Amino acid sequence: MKDVIYGPVNEDLERVKAMLTQLNPGGVTDFPDSSAMLSQILGGGKLLRPLLVLHAGNFFNYNPEKLLPMAASAELLHVSTLVHDDAIDKADRRRGRPTVNSIWGTDKAIVLGDFLFACSGHLAAETESIRAVKLFAGALANISTGELRQSFSAYNLDQGFDQYLKRIIGKTASLFAMSTETGAVLSDAPEDAVEILKNYGLKLGIAFQIMDDLLDFIGTEEELGKPVGSDLLQGTVTLPALKIIEKYRADNPVSRLFEGKGDKESNINEAVAMVKETEIMDECLQGAMDYSREACKDLKNLPASPSIESLNALADSMVKRRN
Amino acid sequence: MKDVIYGPVNEDLERVKAMLTQLNPGGVTDFPDSSAMLSQILGGGKLLRPLLVLHAGNFFNYNPEKLLPMAASAELLHVSTLVHDDAIDKADRRRGRPTVNSIWGTDKAIVLGDFLFACSGHLAAETESIRAVKLFAGALANISTGELRQSFSAYNLDQGFDQYLKRIIGKTASLFAMSTETGAVLSDAPEDAVEILKNYGLKLGIAFQIMDDLLDFIGTEEELGKPVGSDLLQGTVTLPALKIIEKYRADNPVSRLFEGKGDKESNINEAVAMVKETEIMDECLQGAMDYSREACKDLKNLPASPSIESLNALADSMVKRRN
Repeated sequence: MKDVIYGPVNEDLERVKAMLTQLNPGGVTDFPDSSAMLSQILGGGKLLRPLLVLHAGNFFNYNPEKLLPMAASAELLHVSTLVHDDAIDKADRRRGRPTVNSIWGTDKAIVLGDFLFACSGHLAAETESIRAVKLFAGALANISTGELRQSFSAYNLDQGFDQYLKRIIGKTASLFAMSTETGAVLSDAPEDAVEILKNYGLKLGIAFQIMDDLLDFIGTEEELGKPVGSDLLQGTVTLPALKIIEKYRADNPVSRLFEGKGDKESNINEAVAMVKETEIMDECLQGAMDYSREACKDLKNLPASPSIESLNALADSMVKRRN
Repeated sequence: MKDVIYGPVNEDLERVKAMLTQLNPGGVTDFPDSSAMLSQILGGGKLLRPLLVLHAGNFFNYNPEKLLPMAASAELLHVSTLVHDDAIDKADRRRGRPTVNSIWGTDKAIVLGDFLFACSGHLAAETESIRAVKLFAGALANISTGELRQSFSAYNLDQGFDQYLKRIIGKTASLFAMSTETGAVLSDAPEDAVEILKNYGLKLGIAFQIMDDLLDFIGTEEELGKPVGSDLLQGTVTLPALKIIEKYRADNPVSRLFEGKGDKESNINEAVAMVKETEIMDECLQGAMDYSREACKDLKNLPASPSIESLNALADSMVKRRN
């Protein structure tokens, strides 16, 4: 399965990985701590966004000189937002490893995140494509607007599916969409193909985030690499929580938790059990599957490429993942 | 004096100011708090960096369509770093006003800073110039590398002038240089003129930061809009502190402060008095004047433009400023 997903771009993905580990603009790794921070945060990722850039670039003029820096840029943009997110959430672990803020403190996490932002911008500009740079800047704007929205809507029980969707598009799907759209643009894809690939990234990103939000309830601490119910603890209302509130308006553990009523841990445990034991789990799973199918629906209109099979397999794996 | 400095670009500077206050990508100001944060942080600045972009663009093909977004971009990049800096330093006031972190907390300051980064990147891309975007990304990398350096060298007494210079170039002068260089590039200046204007920005930025660091000792709390001796409190070794350490190796208040010996406030007061009452003040002032003169030395080789007088006056005002 993994072979199919990586498929024709496997070697270039290894090159992207090497680019990320050799990151040292301005000789900044003269500082041993800074090297340690970089390897801490750049290790262990699934490199999903680079994978999307490379596959999307594999339908017309596959151009590694532009696609590789863009792929590295997409991953760094992602990682920089993780570093800041973890600092904001005071998270201890990410992908099962200690976070930058938990080892070096919030201040260093802010600075390191900024530095990674800078590196990602630098790499995007290396594509020499003003269109790709604009897509990059647009994704960054969407991500941080999504962050602002999330930050201002925390602990707010009065949210609907539309707001949730807007938030996860900003937070996650816009970067997936940027990855596939820049891949298409940098390989000189015609506009209708750009649109198909951008749509793939967007819908895949939504499916990915719905699964992420569901796994936060139904996964195990070991699978997640962080505590179960982390989102609720941060006051973030995700799809499963939305459904709990909708279905049990009169009284439910999410409302109680946000209103500070009852024991925190019992409320979280109750919410987790509710998602697992009712139709909520299947409804969320169905939502993710719908978006995953939506993502793939027009891929058949692209020219023949081994990357079609990879993109289909990736969408399929998305709704089967456990971490 | 102010008339000469603003001179021919005064009206466009007002337009840049208007662009900054109308900032609302992604409809983010639907959130009242987010509007309040934006106006809190965007008010009261001197708009030095936009001024540099516009003047530097006023020697060849002055093109407001490119220069205005670049000018706004430079200011936003600056402001975004201030928001993060204040969060890291836990500063209460900036320009005499409460900081974002002091009102809304560190978390919101991280998110707002990221959002302003995004806006500045977006505006830089609006110039449609890949060269300008690369300069922008380079400046961002320099700034954050400078931040990382500062962060890892805090409370380190074993620093020389070279390290200090490297740090202030990264932190301040690289953005000044980017402002004048992009202004030149976006107005189709020939390479020798680009070099002259870039050099102006770089040297002016060094002079500006030396003055800033001196004022932190010799200014009043009212002039500075923040407490006197703030840098020392953050463990940042600036030029006056370097000179204190050099001149009084055996025993001095900076070393004592960093080593946690004696009363904090007395050490700071003693250091402030030392700078004011010895030749240190004049030496720093002389350093700033030298760089300010260096900045202007080749301006005479540029074609005639009313902006030459403005740039000369600006460099002159730099070493006379009190805030």
